[in-house]
Amino acid sequence: MKQQKVLINGNRLKDTLEKFADFGRTINNGVTRLALSEEDRLVRDYFCSSCEELGMSIKVDDMGNIYATLEGMENNPPIVIGSHMDSVKKGGRFDGVLGVVAGLEVVRTLIENEIKTRKPITVVNFTNEEGARFEPALMASGVLSGKFEKTKMLQQTDVDGITFGDALQSIGYAGEQEMRLQEGTAFLELHIEQGPVLDQEGVAIGVVECVVGMVCYDIEITGESDHAGTTPMDMRKDALFATNNIITEVRQKLSALDKELVYTIGRMNIFPNIPTVIPNKIVFSLEARHKNPGVIKKVEEIIQGLTHSNVKEGCEIKTTKLWDRDTVWFDRDICNLVEQSSKSLGYSYKRMVSGAGHDAQFVASFIPTAMIFVPSVNGKSHDEDELTSWEDCEKGANVLLETVLALQT
Amino acid sequence: MKQQKVLINGNRLKDTLEKFADFGRTINNGVTRLALSEEDRLVRDYFCSSCEELGMSIKVDDMGNIYATLEGMENNPPIVIGSHMDSVKKGGRFDGVLGVVAGLEVVRTLIENEIKTRKPITVVNFTNEEGARFEPALMASGVLSGKFEKTKMLQQTDVDGITFGDALQSIGYAGEQEMRLQEGTAFLELHIEQGPVLDQEGVAIGVVECVVGMVCYDIEITGESDHAGTTPMDMRKDALFATNNIITEVRQKLSALDKELVYTIGRMNIFPNIPTVIPNKIVFSLEARHKNPGVIKKVEEIIQGLTHSNVKEGCEIKTTKLWDRDTVWFDRDICNLVEQSSKSLGYSYKRMVSGAGHDAQFVASFIPTAMIFVPSVNGKSHDEDELTSWEDCEKGANVLLETVLALQT
Repeated sequence: MKQQKVLINGNRLKDTLEKFADFGRTINNGVTRLALSEEDRLVRDYFCSSCEELGMSIKVDDMGNIYATLEGMENNPPIVIGSHMDSVKKGGRFDGVLGVVAGLEVVRTLIENEIKTRKPITVVNFTNEEGARFEPALMASGVLSGKFEKTKMLQQTDVDGITFGDALQSIGYAGEQEMRLQEGTAFLELHIEQGPVLDQEGVAIGVVECVVGMVCYDIEITGESDHAGTTPMDMRKDALFATNNIITEVRQKLSALDKELVYTIGRMNIFPNIPTVIPNKIVFSLEARHKNPGVIKKVEEIIQGLTHSNVKEGCEIKTTKLWDRDTVWFDRDICNLVEQSSKSLGYSYKRMVSGAGHDAQFVASFIPTAMIFVPSVNGKSHDEDELTSWEDCEKGANVLLETVLALQT
Repeated sequence: MKQQKVLINGNRLKDTLEKFADFGRTINNGVTRLALSEEDRLVRDYFCSSCEELGMSIKVDDMGNIYATLEGMENNPPIVIGSHMDSVKKGGRFDGVLGVVAGLEVVRTLIENEIKTRKPITVVNFTNEEGARFEPALMASGVLSGKFEKTKMLQQTDVDGITFGDALQSIGYAGEQEMRLQEGTAFLELHIEQGPVLDQEGVAIGVVECVVGMVCYDIEITGESDHAGTTPMDMRKDALFATNNIITEVRQKLSALDKELVYTIGRMNIFPNIPTVIPNKIVFSLEARHKNPGVIKKVEEIIQGLTHSNVKEGCEIKTTKLWDRDTVWFDRDICNLVEQSSKSLGYSYKRMVSGAGHDAQFVASFIPTAMIFVPSVNGKSHDEDELTSWEDCEKGANVLLETVLALQT
């Protein structure tokens, strides 16, 4: 069918990305396009009309997910490409939307090259991936996969008390449950890495093998809240100094586990939080991520063991698991196709894991799935400074196209 | 004049303390009697009428300080005894009010024993020692000593926007500037220790030599706020882990300085404070107290040297001095009298410092001053559980009386 390599149009991809970024563009050239906001409505309308111009048919399901389908020669389950168009507040121009726009660019390229695929191509926009307006993140793909309950999700409220269900109705994207994505030949999500690895190593394409498993604990340290001036050091039960010791201990133990393990203390609250009063309570989160469940198990043993620490300064320690998730492995064959596509295009690539969550991790439960990463400059995302070079966007879209074509055979 | 020792009436002291505690008593047997509140007005009225019953004359100055004076045989500058009757929210029944009620009990004892002193005795109630409703603490004694500016203080507002000046008017305790305490033979403040030392060591009386000097810094550590899942450990600039290192370093250095040094990290704020985001900024307070200015100077050198720490994890460190105060030494002769009084009464006592601030530290700038501490059970204060045994209250009041009598000679 194809002799010479078919490539996407880099300039058109760039122009389309910039056009999409106009819906919610911030003064600092970022994007604020919260799920089901007016900006989200407008970008959805524009996406739909762009697809319809190409002769694609549009379906919207009961979670507001949009499916734009280009018919194939055979009535096979479609090859699904996509991601999400919602953003966090003051986010970037690439996170999510790159995967949707690249899907559109793949279809445009197929049409202008008069390539009729055997299987239908469906470009999908998942609703509310970010969870920035309505928690949780990955809401709509979570409902598709059965991870989240629809009725509960429709009742989730934003800071103004507006429910997800009402917001979905009000922007005109409440469709039918029968329209939901149920099967596919493959799902491919092109996404920015949102981490520094590809950028630092100068690699163009990440072949994503999995979304790593994680666990998150709350650790509460309780001491006594005495007067900072009148209590000698050896008569204190200082929850902050105990916390300092515990963090040192847990860092030593975790850093010895595995060099791919990442762990973060992102939230910490101090009580009563007054300069002249010895803290009597500290609560902090500790989350850790690794692809290997055995490593996560060891992390949990280390955290649970902290209650027996001998550097507690007379304080009490309580650990509570907040959440966890297992590693989601992507389809080995499709990952291999992504790798072959990168290689055949002459792009540098590496096998890697995703430390962040993506819709693909839920879709993977019912469609063979893979993800393609492109570099994030300095690893920045969820930030107006988020940047992926136009050249890297183009390479990512070409790998996507090449993989779609490979899936035809 | 006196052959046998004159002693105060312990039961009457207890009953009077409980009567005073009725003004603002909480359900847990603590006291909420914020400065210039209705409870404060009522306790002031009761204090004044109690003093007037004894034939004392009442003066109120422009900061609302109350002076109840029992005439002496000679028109010397008075011996001033007292403390404060305001409390923090959900405070205890002893903090401050003990010094005022003990003053009243001393006068009652003198009268019933028909002891006419050479010098007048003035029992004082200082307005707004706690600073719980209107900042700063030690407000009125600070104005008397010239430390604070009256006009600025009158404009201080509470959480409802009410000014100190208006509140003072509304409870009817805005007096004349000419009434201010200006001179005295001595000022004696009996107070609970608000720390654990006397209680732990089983000592009845603290002969307070000084209010220790202190310094308080803000330390700001700035890193980078990256994704907790996608950023490898060696590519992070984690402000929290840097803070952990810095606190360990500063604790090691400070603990080597002097065993009487106390230091506290009471306030810490983490940004953005989200479990899944690496913190990019931590700001924490570090305050330290010691009687020796040389030790405080070394503390400051250690804090300022943190900016050159080599365990910063790639973060930046900024230190800012928030405030400091010098050690206030009390009058050596009066301290000796307090010690002799304790000894002659057969009470256990120890020379000690005050780590907390007291009105006495400002009065000391214009009247020879000393303080007497009595034990706080478990060091608790500013708490409904605050407790000093009735026996210790009685001992403290007896030392106060004995010292007043000694000052007559």
